[in-house]
Amino acid sequence: MVNPAPPSDDPARHTAKADASRPLPPGFEPSRFATVLGELASIVGEDNVRRGEAVDPYDDPFVPAADPRAFAASAAVLPANVDEIRAILRVANGARLPLWTVSTGRNFAYGGAAPRLSGSVVLDLQRMNRVLDVNESLAYALVEPGVSYYDLYAALRQRNSALWVDPPAAGWGSVIGNTLERGFGYTPYGDHAATQCGMEVVLANGDVVRTGMGGIDTGTAWQLFRPGYGPSFDPMFMQSNYGIVTKMGVWLMPAPPAYLLGEIQFAREDDLGVIVDTLRALQLGGTIRHHAVIEGAIRRAASITPRARWYDGAGPMPESAVEAIQRDLGVGRWNLHYALYGERAVIDAQRRVVERAFAAVPGVRFAAKRYAANEVPQGGGDRNLAGIPTMTAFRMLDWLGGPGAHVDFSPLCPAAGADALRQYALVKARAAEYGFDYYGGFTAGGRHLHHVFAAIFARGNPDAAARAGDLLRALMSDARAAGYGVYRSHLLYMDYAAAQYGFNDGASLRLAETVKDALDPNGVLSPGKQGIWPRRWRAQRGYT
Amino acid sequence: MVNPAPPSDDPARHTAKADASRPLPPGFEPSRFATVLGELASIVGEDNVRRGEAVDPYDDPFVPAADPRAFAASAAVLPANVDEIRAILRVANGARLPLWTVSTGRNFAYGGAAPRLSGSVVLDLQRMNRVLDVNESLAYALVEPGVSYYDLYAALRQRNSALWVDPPAAGWGSVIGNTLERGFGYTPYGDHAATQCGMEVVLANGDVVRTGMGGIDTGTAWQLFRPGYGPSFDPMFMQSNYGIVTKMGVWLMPAPPAYLLGEIQFAREDDLGVIVDTLRALQLGGTIRHHAVIEGAIRRAASITPRARWYDGAGPMPESAVEAIQRDLGVGRWNLHYALYGERAVIDAQRRVVERAFAAVPGVRFAAKRYAANEVPQGGGDRNLAGIPTMTAFRMLDWLGGPGAHVDFSPLCPAAGADALRQYALVKARAAEYGFDYYGGFTAGGRHLHHVFAAIFARGNPDAAARAGDLLRALMSDARAAGYGVYRSHLLYMDYAAAQYGFNDGASLRLAETVKDALDPNGVLSPGKQGIWPRRWRAQRGYT
Repeated sequence: MVNPAPPSDDPARHTAKADASRPLPPGFEPSRFATVLGELASIVGEDNVRRGEAVDPYDDPFVPAADPRAFAASAAVLPANVDEIRAILRVANGARLPLWTVSTGRNFAYGGAAPRLSGSVVLDLQRMNRVLDVNESLAYALVEPGVSYYDLYAALRQRNSALWVDPPAAGWGSVIGNTLERGFGYTPYGDHAATQCGMEVVLANGDVVRTGMGGIDTGTAWQLFRPGYGPSFDPMFMQSNYGIVTKMGVWLMPAPPAYLLGEIQFAREDDLGVIVDTLRALQLGGTIRHHAVIEGAIRRAASITPRARWYDGAGPMPESAVEAIQRDLGVGRWNLHYALYGERAVIDAQRRVVERAFAAVPGVRFAAKRYAANEVPQGGGDRNLAGIPTMTAFRMLDWLGGPGAHVDFSPLCPAAGADALRQYALVKARAAEYGFDYYGGFTAGGRHLHHVFAAIFARGNPDAAARAGDLLRALMSDARAAGYGVYRSHLLYMDYAAAQYGFNDGASLRLAETVKDALDPNGVLSPGKQGIWPRRWRAQRGYT
Repeated sequence: MVNPAPPSDDPARHTAKADASRPLPPGFEPSRFATVLGELASIVGEDNVRRGEAVDPYDDPFVPAADPRAFAASAAVLPANVDEIRAILRVANGARLPLWTVSTGRNFAYGGAAPRLSGSVVLDLQRMNRVLDVNESLAYALVEPGVSYYDLYAALRQRNSALWVDPPAAGWGSVIGNTLERGFGYTPYGDHAATQCGMEVVLANGDVVRTGMGGIDTGTAWQLFRPGYGPSFDPMFMQSNYGIVTKMGVWLMPAPPAYLLGEIQFAREDDLGVIVDTLRALQLGGTIRHHAVIEGAIRRAASITPRARWYDGAGPMPESAVEAIQRDLGVGRWNLHYALYGERAVIDAQRRVVERAFAAVPGVRFAAKRYAANEVPQGGGDRNLAGIPTMTAFRMLDWLGGPGAHVDFSPLCPAAGADALRQYALVKARAAEYGFDYYGGFTAGGRHLHHVFAAIFARGNPDAAARAGDLLRALMSDARAAGYGVYRSHLLYMDYAAAQYGFNDGASLRLAETVKDALDPNGVLSPGKQGIWPRRWRAQRGYT
């Protein structure tokens, strides 16, 4: 299983050449660190320990701070299997060495492969890249952390499977990595945390646990029923640092007999409210069963044209330019992308329900195309909706001309028109104040929306990066004041984001850290991830 | 909010009058226990501490063991609010007093309100029975543990809500209690663990946590997005003893514009295979979106007639009697109950898809009725499918004539015809060996089935009860040998069931107990629940 060639805009290629010096793990002398790396090399082989310049690719090329090395690994180690991971953990526990686990490290916009605690050693699982099982009739796969969406897609095509994957925006990401970060895609299987079933986890003490029905070691239901018997732990291993996930089940959607991809364009900025309220009813009623996306005009335009065609002055794009985009490209101020999957007759009936629901909005425009099971759409975004991984989301990096970077502000939004309008107004105004366009949209999950705003800036420009970071912090503060919290954050603000969840003086973080100390008493696994610090490193917390 | 009058077959009414002596908590002297109960009374008031005979209703009337007091509480305490719970926990931690938390204690067939560790004090939350919030547009409620499905249904009707509840088989159960035990219902919201969103939990140390978005204390998304930021803990509080859930969000289904209830009858025993395989495809394809039920002939007949009409000899009902049931009542050997919810035109198209899928099965018979939004069906099972709580499932208690009891064997089954046939054959044969009818069915959840077999026996008959318990143990052992595990179990076999999940020498239970010791170092919360014992009581474990 091989990843496709990286897209030409692979951010790693643009990373400025850095000097060879890397930070040491906190509290380590060079000689002691050399000894520990030697021990790791004796486990995984010298080729699979990265030192010096070879660690540069683990830096975050999109870091929203003036210092491009604000979060820097000391080294990286790439195990081949669970036994090697257990041996690495023995070394790490003995030496009190902080590790930072990544599946493949494609967590761009939130830190990439870089660690929260500078000097951590990246534990990179990309070599563990087998598709261990595909069950065609029960519609699931069992994968290792190094398996990307491209890999899984290729494995399915190779065996002429009739199962789809649900790719996230960037198809090169790890299936496990994306799921553990609670990433999402676009088909009815778009809630990746909800379509995961069964994990194998190596705990900090080296114990290997299989969750749910995986406890029945001769069983066949590990990938079929998540909870098993007793408490269910899978969601506790997401966005956390409680263990190293080495295998995961993922449900796959059987290819539908037919499907329809539709776009509905809305003319006015404040149509957002009625879009959200109408879409919610369609989702809760079961007509629209997938993650539909409400895309702003600028993001819609970025998939077609460069920014300079519309505006190349300083500061955010003026209203007149957005109007020109709408007029000249024939796109909406808001563009709703939806899909229907199933039998033709059912789809046709559902399409009428959808169009009837939006028909009263002044200036609404409908477009839709129905595909047979064996037809595939050509556009990248549309291909995602048909279960085909793409990298077209990375076009946003070209928006400013020249190599770009982005960091994402991702507040959770109630699926209510009034809330969506409020968050939109808040983000747009604050972004403009800091000189950024509103480059955003909403992904609809029934009762909630993932509001994702990307602050796009020129890569390698410390001023722009710092400005993006400042904007991010201001947005989090604004959101909190309005009663909203983010579902994910960049390394830079993991502590700050966690602190917003302050009910009862931070009871949820207290619970998280109690569990952390019980499972990882030496604090070796990903200290600081999502604001959870083991006792040993708790003084490192900072609400930057 | 008042519960309806208990149904006439309220098992509590049939509990044999027991002597006034109750066990003491392990390690307690009578005088010390009296002191502790006095302290509890000073918190909740004397009326809300139950002693002596007043504790009898907490016994399990269905206990599958010769000793009707195999699991007996020492006392019960009924707090009115979170502050009282915290005060009770202070006393329990100080005295090392084991508590056994129940929402309302309707966990019949699995132990009712009785504790795993005899002598525990039942912490009964039934007085906390407020419906705290109903959000009509975002379609959820926030409830306390004492709210039953009847209560919630009544609260919704009272405010002319267009939201449905999803009742489990017995509508008198607590919404929170049923969800925490991973109970299920029949509508598209039938997976109660999956339609729960947001909890307030009091930990053993008295700390009050709100999970997920509940950490944003001025927020509005607590009931809209379960994970929040960082690890998600809600599923860890299910089937466990890690905390006391005092509030929970529950998603509610908007009443559909129309719905259709269908029954498909199949003539032959081995049709089960094709039913399961076909139903799985319909569920994974999104045509059938709810928990459809495949009901055996005997269970189907029990909702219409008493057993004696067909057979009143000893031992299991012979094949000829089952054939008579099929012929005389016009029911199938297997009966598939399914429903479609939505717009009329969509339902009609989906019904054709369903009937086409099963049309090739020899002897298949279809029946279906479509309802408008404001119409309600009359039969109990059908009412459950329309979101109306009932107690008709308790008719099974009359199957043998005279007051009955049942214990359930609930193996998880892959949604594959071959597995369903295998489990059915296994259970039917072993049940017959112990003199029980195959009284069972399968509830379909996409990739898995909940296979539920009820061993029905005469209440108050120690021999019959012991025989049911022996059967249960034999079935668990058979299932394990075939690679299956149960998703739930009676108190009697909680340890045995947990031990079946033996991968890596019981790693999942080791993880569960590590978390337990971290969160409840004094072991005061529900020792032994689902096989999880705190360090203090670990010697009590027994694979009976």
